[in-house]
Amino acid sequence: MTVLFSARSVHRLGYPSHWARTRFTLNGRRPASGYAKYNHEDPLNLESLLTEEEIAIRDTAREYCQENLTPRVLQGWRTEKFDHDILPEMGKLGLLGPTIKGYGCAGVNNVAYGLIAREIERVDSGYRSMASVQSSLVMHPINEFGTDAQKERYLPRLAKGELVGCFGLTEPNHGSDPAGMETTCEETDGGFILNGSKTWISNAPVADVFIVWARCKWDGKVRGFILEKGVKGLEAPAIKNKIALRASLTGSIFMDSVKVGHDALLPHGQGLSAPFSCLNSARYGISWGVMGALEDCIQKTLVYALERKQFKRPLASFQLIQKKLVDAQTEAVLGLQASVQIGRLKDAGKLAPEMVSMVKRNNCGKALQHCRVILDILGGNASSDEYHVGRHVANLQVVNTYEGTYDIHGLILGKAMTGIQAFAN
Amino acid sequence: MTVLFSARSVHRLGYPSHWARTRFTLNGRRPASGYAKYNHEDPLNLESLLTEEEIAIRDTAREYCQENLTPRVLQGWRTEKFDHDILPEMGKLGLLGPTIKGYGCAGVNNVAYGLIAREIERVDSGYRSMASVQSSLVMHPINEFGTDAQKERYLPRLAKGELVGCFGLTEPNHGSDPAGMETTCEETDGGFILNGSKTWISNAPVADVFIVWARCKWDGKVRGFILEKGVKGLEAPAIKNKIALRASLTGSIFMDSVKVGHDALLPHGQGLSAPFSCLNSARYGISWGVMGALEDCIQKTLVYALERKQFKRPLASFQLIQKKLVDAQTEAVLGLQASVQIGRLKDAGKLAPEMVSMVKRNNCGKALQHCRVILDILGGNASSDEYHVGRHVANLQVVNTYEGTYDIHGLILGKAMTGIQAFAN
Amino acid sequence: MTVLFSARSVHRLGYPSHWARTRFTLNGRRPASGYAKYNHEDPLNLESLLTEEEIAIRDTAREYCQENLTPRVLQGWRTEKFDHDILPEMGKLGLLGPTIKGYGCAGVNNVAYGLIAREIERVDSGYRSMASVQSSLVMHPINEFGTDAQKERYLPRLAKGELVGCFGLTEPNHGSDPAGMETTCEETDGGFILNGSKTWISNAPVADVFIVWARCKWDGKVRGFILEKGVKGLEAPAIKNKIALRASLTGSIFMDSVKVGHDALLPHGQGLSAPFSCLNSARYGISWGVMGALEDCIQKTLVYALERKQFKRPLASFQLIQKKLVDAQTEAVLGLQASVQIGRLKDAGKLAPEMVSMVKRNNCGKALQHCRVILDILGGNASSDEYHVGRHVANLQVVNTYEGTYDIHGLILGKAMTGIQAFAN
Amino acid sequence: MTVLFSARSVHRLGYPSHWARTRFTLNGRRPASGYAKYNHEDPLNLESLLTEEEIAIRDTAREYCQENLTPRVLQGWRTEKFDHDILPEMGKLGLLGPTIKGYGCAGVNNVAYGLIAREIERVDSGYRSMASVQSSLVMHPINEFGTDAQKERYLPRLAKGELVGCFGLTEPNHGSDPAGMETTCEETDGGFILNGSKTWISNAPVADVFIVWARCKWDGKVRGFILEKGVKGLEAPAIKNKIALRASLTGSIFMDSVKVGHDALLPHGQGLSAPFSCLNSARYGISWGVMGALEDCIQKTLVYALERKQFKRPLASFQLIQKKLVDAQTEAVLGLQASVQIGRLKDAGKLAPEMVSMVKRNNCGKALQHCRVILDILGGNASSDEYHVGRHVANLQVVNTYEGTYDIHGLILGKAMTGIQAFAN
Repeated sequence: MTVLFSARSVHRLGYPSHWARTRFTLNGRRPASGYAKYNHEDPLNLESLLTEEEIAIRDTAREYCQENLTPRVLQGWRTEKFDHDILPEMGKLGLLGPTIKGYGCAGVNNVAYGLIAREIERVDSGYRSMASVQSSLVMHPINEFGTDAQKERYLPRLAKGELVGCFGLTEPNHGSDPAGMETTCEETDGGFILNGSKTWISNAPVADVFIVWARCKWDGKVRGFILEKGVKGLEAPAIKNKIALRASLTGSIFMDSVKVGHDALLPHGQGLSAPFSCLNSARYGISWGVMGALEDCIQKTLVYALERKQFKRPLASFQLIQKKLVDAQTEAVLGLQASVQIGRLKDAGKLAPEMVSMVKRNNCGKALQHCRVILDILGGNASSDEYHVGRHVANLQVVNTYEGTYDIHGLILGKAMTGIQAFAN
Repeated sequence: MTVLFSARSVHRLGYPSHWARTRFTLNGRRPASGYAKYNHEDPLNLESLLTEEEIAIRDTAREYCQENLTPRVLQGWRTEKFDHDILPEMGKLGLLGPTIKGYGCAGVNNVAYGLIAREIERVDSGYRSMASVQSSLVMHPINEFGTDAQKERYLPRLAKGELVGCFGLTEPNHGSDPAGMETTCEETDGGFILNGSKTWISNAPVADVFIVWARCKWDGKVRGFILEKGVKGLEAPAIKNKIALRASLTGSIFMDSVKVGHDALLPHGQGLSAPFSCLNSARYGISWGVMGALEDCIQKTLVYALERKQFKRPLASFQLIQKKLVDAQTEAVLGLQASVQIGRLKDAGKLAPEMVSMVKRNNCGKALQHCRVILDILGGNASSDEYHVGRHVANLQVVNTYEGTYDIHGLILGKAMTGIQAFAN
Repeated sequence: MTVLFSARSVHRLGYPSHWARTRFTLNGRRPASGYAKYNHEDPLNLESLLTEEEIAIRDTAREYCQENLTPRVLQGWRTEKFDHDILPEMGKLGLLGPTIKGYGCAGVNNVAYGLIAREIERVDSGYRSMASVQSSLVMHPINEFGTDAQKERYLPRLAKGELVGCFGLTEPNHGSDPAGMETTCEETDGGFILNGSKTWISNAPVADVFIVWARCKWDGKVRGFILEKGVKGLEAPAIKNKIALRASLTGSIFMDSVKVGHDALLPHGQGLSAPFSCLNSARYGISWGVMGALEDCIQKTLVYALERKQFKRPLASFQLIQKKLVDAQTEAVLGLQASVQIGRLKDAGKLAPEMVSMVKRNNCGKALQHCRVILDILGGNASSDEYHVGRHVANLQVVNTYEGTYDIHGLILGKAMTGIQAFAN
Repeated sequence: MTVLFSARSVHRLGYPSHWARTRFTLNGRRPASGYAKYNHEDPLNLESLLTEEEIAIRDTAREYCQENLTPRVLQGWRTEKFDHDILPEMGKLGLLGPTIKGYGCAGVNNVAYGLIAREIERVDSGYRSMASVQSSLVMHPINEFGTDAQKERYLPRLAKGELVGCFGLTEPNHGSDPAGMETTCEETDGGFILNGSKTWISNAPVADVFIVWARCKWDGKVRGFILEKGVKGLEAPAIKNKIALRASLTGSIFMDSVKVGHDALLPHGQGLSAPFSCLNSARYGISWGVMGALEDCIQKTLVYALERKQFKRPLASFQLIQKKLVDAQTEAVLGLQASVQIGRLKDAGKLAPEMVSMVKRNNCGKALQHCRVILDILGGNASSDEYHVGRHVANLQVVNTYEGTYDIHGLILGKAMTGIQAFAN
């Protein structure tokens, strides 16, 4: 064994130069003690991992969301109505399809994309779902698997929010197992005929553009198609009376011999890897988003605990309350740091899909668990929608389930760890 | 609101240049799919956050620990005997007091220090405790608060492991509340007289050098003193029949009118902030160490689950087993990433003590929780010490408690979050 | 030490004769193996602990609830409208104030009362709340603390459901600490004047009879008063947009110099022990009710898991699904058995209030926890109210909080265990 | 629907007469308030469910265990030595094979048997294991499946503790799946020849009598055999260096062409149902035993929390401490009540094996979980064996695993619930 640590050899050791150049905006003042000041809203100074531009994007997104979405969310939740102004507003700020280069898109990196998702979901998971679908599940596949003509036709208007998109992969009988897909496509003269149905499709009832995945009869492979609203045989009724994500619209898609031209095919992706690429992008965004929801719940319950007195003392002074808040804050920062890391790896082309499974699963599961715990801090007021935390809790249960349930992602990771697939065990 | 994301302005956006230069040794081959290969032992590619030198240090430490400590640990555990060769061996490799510059120490950064702790505790928390005490609780205060003469006298021999050190802060009646300290110091001609007792002191029964903290009668302040073995009135009997950390020695310290010269005083630290600085350093190392123990348990139970068959199939193929392993691996990587971050912040002078509380608490709690869960994978073999996981579990319960219990660190964080101290609530 | 177990002395040992006479309706067929058949819906044969009459009452309540409440619950939940037919229907069957003797009440024992609560909450916690308030919080105090005239005036019509009652104890600033009550009563010629406000009061907006608790200025003691709808200065606006218990109505009570006659005073209870007696009765019923909700969730998710296929196999065949269901069923039976026991003790006059705290706390906490876990079995369908489980989950969060939060009951038990009150710690 | 609750019909309702005759020794004084006094050590007054004789048996067992076993347990744990006096002492009091009628056995009911197990395990799970093996796994099968000659030969001396028995079912390769048994028996002139090995067999190294299960070559069925120490080819070496159950002895059994006479066969049981009957009896006892261990941990940590002060207040005054204790006490009483119930059903011939799976699983899991939680109350002293709780924790991990792991019992219950076996999933 070599003795590496002679005084000489280790003297040259140091951590990577970039770490020394990290920004410390919030904790900049180093107190006399030699320690930095602790900021409980950013306990591990993750701000230091962001560039100035990323911080600027985040702040813009936060300002928009807090000023423009927060005032609308209760009405949206109560009425289950789609607000047609929101996507155009987001589009104007560059929040849609933000990682795409060209076509009027912002072309930012994936960390910036994540920061946007976090700010939107800080208000509501439904709003974030709406935006995720547009960006990761509609614009992304057109950009990745589409022709130039398709890109020109759809991307600029999707980026502006003039068109609403939706993504039809999940089928009534195949939630966790898209390989069981029953929707079919057969070639006909001049195009294709699609038959089948999809369900739990965000944005579907108001969508102008449908990215639909079907199994092609001629070779058994799954391919994606762009359908436009109004084509004969296509219907997308809303699913009403949801108990979660009520601020966004969800529907089914029914295709009864829908006929489209050859130009509806997304030619550059075939097999399930194409829609999985979309899902990976969306799940990555979710991993950021749910942390925003958790942070909002922490902030709201902390304020409540400081103001609310029982037995003549603020709730925040009770050990059992402090524990709940601290546990939640700990998981928020751990989850966010993991999202930063996979964002960096994604930008560097070093991402593995299993990483997304791990962080989507962990962050959703932890956000749900801890929002539920701290909801109790509100006491009886927890049941009023004006306190918001209960709404987040209801939303997060769905977010923990969609785009790969907690258990399915666990089994994907289990397979990666053991080499043995246990999905059907 | 400014529209930040015009195509022009965001085009210049990019993540920090250093992220692009990250190393990807393990996942270097980018598969055809555009994705990196997943390495379940480093699920989020934390290797990419380390410098080449840090990786070299880690590999050296790992090689030493696996080749030299692993073969001894069962004997140490079974007999509760101190192995006098270990500290000198570590000293030879530069593993003791490694962040100190000069005095024969390696002068590496804090991330490297953490990596070393992780490798030692991958074998046993008792061995890591032994090294932590030497480095963070003995060499650190001498280096920070001592005179040049004290540094010259003690540091080189402590660095070589020729001298064994211990740290006497905790008292029988004051575990979580060192402010209640009862040990006293009074000045006398030519020096000081110390009276009092300490307990649960690692290394004490074999220590040559005792860093002891006492309340000074003349001003009520706590100060540190260096005591040497053999001084009259000092005794340090061993506490035997421990059910954990049996590979390291623990004892009490009794001081019955121990008289020392003025040169025994550590002059540059007064008040509890001095010993707290030591504890912060040690807790930081613990946050790394326990992740090593957890990783060892994961590795051992995974191997077992792959080899062991029940109902004609490997345990690793069962959903309930996969879930246990995946949950454990997820927490290991989240905890490690947090340790990297606070290590970087420590090196940059940006650390807040509460950060250490958060990561020490989280990593210990999670390591303990998940080692307990995966221990069950071993079935009946769990109760044999030859399977090692049960030993880690027993150790981690103590590590979760010492140097600030899980609850106390939670309340420290609760105070930071709410502004209200609830220790005695 | 006496040797008790000589063959002679122990030969006469036997369990109480009644155990031998237990009924075993469901598991009556003893299979050849010498074992009874297992009934997973009653895993520990709690049916054997019930009398025939209790079983008959339960079956009547179940039939009514399943046939008459289940069809209405979705509409009630969606619209937050009070259904004025329900209490009269319950009254006709004897389900209101059922433990009261006379006044047209059924006069059954407390186990029967609990069985009724379980059946109602099997449909919805809101319906059970409505009935609990009527029985335990309105009829009970009138019966216990009222005059004969008050009993004659109110009980028969409350028992029939012709009058709706509500119970005003909780105040906006005093949820967990009713001793902080701010509502006052002062004597005036011919009666009393009440001032103050109450909140989160079930049934208030539609109540004909208000049991309101106020601190009497002349001696500082808390006493109860019966107020009737329409008296000047009394208002009870509804709290709308609840996210739970939407099938029952909740409101505030505002009393602005409400003047009532001397006959409004409940003369036989003074001090907080009177309302606490009501709460104990209600909490006892809750302990049964929430087990009904949990059982309904188990039944619905089990059916779903058996029918729903993924990866070509029913969900019910997956280990991770089976574990969720089994854990839930285990807690259901443990909680129910505890409720039976405290019901028997209550009937025997052997109940301690702390027992109710323990079982209310445990059963609510476990019902909430496990309903949340098994909700995930529904996958995406969890978010549709037509699958019912999500509604139960939302309800149970409130039920876990009202009438003494989970934490407050824990601290009540902590005080009983340690002798030290820690409410405000 | 019939209106059942006319005043007339329900007037005759009442709970079973026996409930009215229940004993209320501890809570007999009904305080002025109309409530009983709460006894935190028996929170739901389970004492009221026991007969006077059962209470007397329990008290005798408790007195013996506390006076005679408690003083020996540390020595036993530290040295892993078998104490040959203990079984004879137990035998003298009638604690061995206590449910057997005749042969010098006490002939008590199963609830009494459970109460005994609880008292022994209140001291140590190893002592209870030793007794369980003797009673449920050795005396029970001889009594159930043996000839009169076998009963006469072995039962009296086993009952007296003059002979030590062990039970060989588990094999090195088949822990959770005894159907995979590899030990064989073939008939030879004058008897049988057995070959195979068993492992993790309690009492084996000191056993005089071995109940060994083997697959018979002539018909493929599993049968039991009684082997006596010293027969040629039989060895039973001890497994040393256990980290749990160190106060009892564990070993392997190796059978190398062990030849026995025809009278070694237990003729009245064939197939796995015979050993499963033994396991069911043992598991039933375990369900009681672990509750005793949990109760001991609660009692010891409560005393500690009351005496130990930090921040000038007893630990017992802190919310976080009270919560730990209360949660533990709640589970203890729930688990005990379930054990009473299955004991009653067992005595009435109404037991289903799945009931035992449920209560064994629940009680072991909860005991382990909560002993671990409250262990932390001891702070640093947790690691001293003199505080006992850590020993219980180590033991309970094994008890949670042996005689059917937590997961296996969960899957047994899952099968009962869903009709689908998922052991190998």
